[in-house]
Amino acid sequence: MRTGEDMNFREEPNTGDLLHVSRILEERGIFRANEIAVALELVQDRIDKGKSSEYMFLFMDGENELDGFACYGPISVTQSCYDLYWIAVRKGSGRSGIGGRMMEMLCKRARGEGGTWIFAETSTLEGYAPAREFYLKSGFGQTCTVPDFYAPGDGKIIFRKALGNVPD
Amino acid sequence: MRTGEDMNFREEPNTGDLLHVSRILEERGIFRANEIAVALELVQDRIDKGKSSEYMFLFMDGENELDGFACYGPISVTQSCYDLYWIAVRKGSGRSGIGGRMMEMLCKRARGEGGTWIFAETSTLEGYAPAREFYLKSGFGQTCTVPDFYAPGDGKIIFRKALGNVPD
Repeated sequence: MRTGEDMNFREEPNTGDLLHVSRILEERGIFRANEIAVALELVQDRIDKGKSSEYMFLFMDGENELDGFACYGPISVTQSCYDLYWIAVRKGSGRSGIGGRMMEMLCKRARGEGGTWIFAETSTLEGYAPAREFYLKSGFGQTCTVPDFYAPGDGKIIFRKALGNVPD
Repeated sequence: MRTGEDMNFREEPNTGDLLHVSRILEERGIFRANEIAVALELVQDRIDKGKSSEYMFLFMDGENELDGFACYGPISVTQSCYDLYWIAVRKGSGRSGIGGRMMEMLCKRARGEGGTWIFAETSTLEGYAPAREFYLKSGFGQTCTVPDFYAPGDGKIIFRKALGNVPD
């Protein structure tokens, strides 16, 4: 297993990532087809528009395939808030700490651009307990809950984390 | 003043609407330039993509210019929830009840497509008190609040309204 020091991150996607992102999300077994389609649209948006896309990425390359990715970006109607749209690691990638390391890196980048808060949303369903624990462990707090959001019986929890830029 | 019966609504925007939408929002005096830019992007998306756009509109034509508009649409990661992105009436349009009538129409359309909830978000700032009152009067309830969302000191309130499609 490699250490955090030599992990191979990049920011720009290529067409091949579409298949890998789709596979990583399918293998998690908790995402609906329409959710995965939205993730692929965001990757495609970045491929098409490059740095002028509002969607920012981290891709973690493994030996033969993608081991993880994260998608985040500024929330356009806010002065300095960021959304973490996706963060996912390949099942059986055999590496620990990739998710945490990607979270650290993207928070550092958002903070460097003046970000005050980063938001993450996830489901209230049992299958999403690991996601909720990951956000709490990463320093996010639970801001509010919207029952029946994703579907009847499937609510949304909004988490957020302070990025360290204290306003005047 | 016309009555509700002969109000002239249409669903598809044309290029001329960009100027009028921008003017309506500027004249309200509470929207930031980047917020107005987002509204115009949504109109442009509908012009470019037509019915395949995820953004749905109602335009209320006045005698010489646009008297009001609303923008709403299904929330892609949800099964049956809708977002009301914008609803605004021209200052001095001299017509009462346009906002309420547009709200009725768009809720009816979302309900007709199987929508369960429609969401609206607005600011906690004093200038947005009329918007908050309008949502409450239109049958929305306050779901949750995110402090410092739009900017430090400028929080977001999430409202939602049941559309009448009760799940099994």
